[in-house]
Amino acid sequence: MNTDFMTQISFDAAGLVPAIAQQHDTGEVLMMAWMNREAILETLDTGAVCYWSRSRQSLWRKGESSGHTQKIVDFRIDCDGDTILLLVDQKGVACHTGRHNCFFTSLLGREAKIISDIEISPEEMYGKPTDGA
Amino acid sequence: MNTDFMTQISFDAAGLVPAIAQQHDTGEVLMMAWMNREAILETLDTGAVCYWSRSRQSLWRKGESSGHTQKIVDFRIDCDGDTILLLVDQKGVACHTGRHNCFFTSLLGREAKIISDIEISPEEMYGKPTDGA
Repeated sequence: MNTDFMTQISFDAAGLVPAIAQQHDTGEVLMMAWMNREAILETLDTGAVCYWSRSRQSLWRKGESSGHTQKIVDFRIDCDGDTILLLVDQKGVACHTGRHNCFFTSLLGREAKIISDIEISPEEMYGKPTDGA
Repeated sequence: MNTDFMTQISFDAAGLVPAIAQQHDTGEVLMMAWMNREAILETLDTGAVCYWSRSRQSLWRKGESSGHTQKIVDFRIDCDGDTILLLVDQKGVACHTGRHNCFFTSLLGREAKIISDIEISPEEMYGKPTDGA
């Protein structure tokens, strides 16, 4: 398998690179997380976005527990190769709070203002996995 | 001046937080850079986006030399406060290569494919190179 393209990517001292996920058709910025070489290869191989969880120190297959997966549409890097832009097709919602994207807090007025609503309760997302009530 | 809102932001060990710049009306993701407390305060105070340059270790007033500035439209943080999403109005182009945004390289096919053109030559943006021919 060709991994030469990896030389285009500048990983940080921890072997990670930030990855922005953007909904491919609406332009909505959904979230930002981190990837390592393994997460990148899994994402390109399977077509399902996989990050690296810095808190758990393990691969984070997005949506594995909630079902709210991200399908890869394009995989772009920036001009100096140290940031990834993932164009994705988000199933359900991207944020663990049940909002469609993670950027729901504005600080423009120098105090936190919540600008979007919860679409699915976290209990519904992570609670009873397959069979509901 | 109220700086209490800073407690909502999780800075890394170097006192930095990644900031994604998105064109407010088209949804185009322009670039990703880093901010520290000082850059954030200057951005909110002046309305002109200011980053922190990790390579130069100094404030980076975006567009100061090229004139291609970013006006702040909204300043959002994500659910755990460790990423900023700047909605901006980009004057000219965001990328130092003269392209409108920095994410002009696709690696989806496991080799670099350039997907957008240069709009303004770097010479035109920054004037005569200092040491070129």
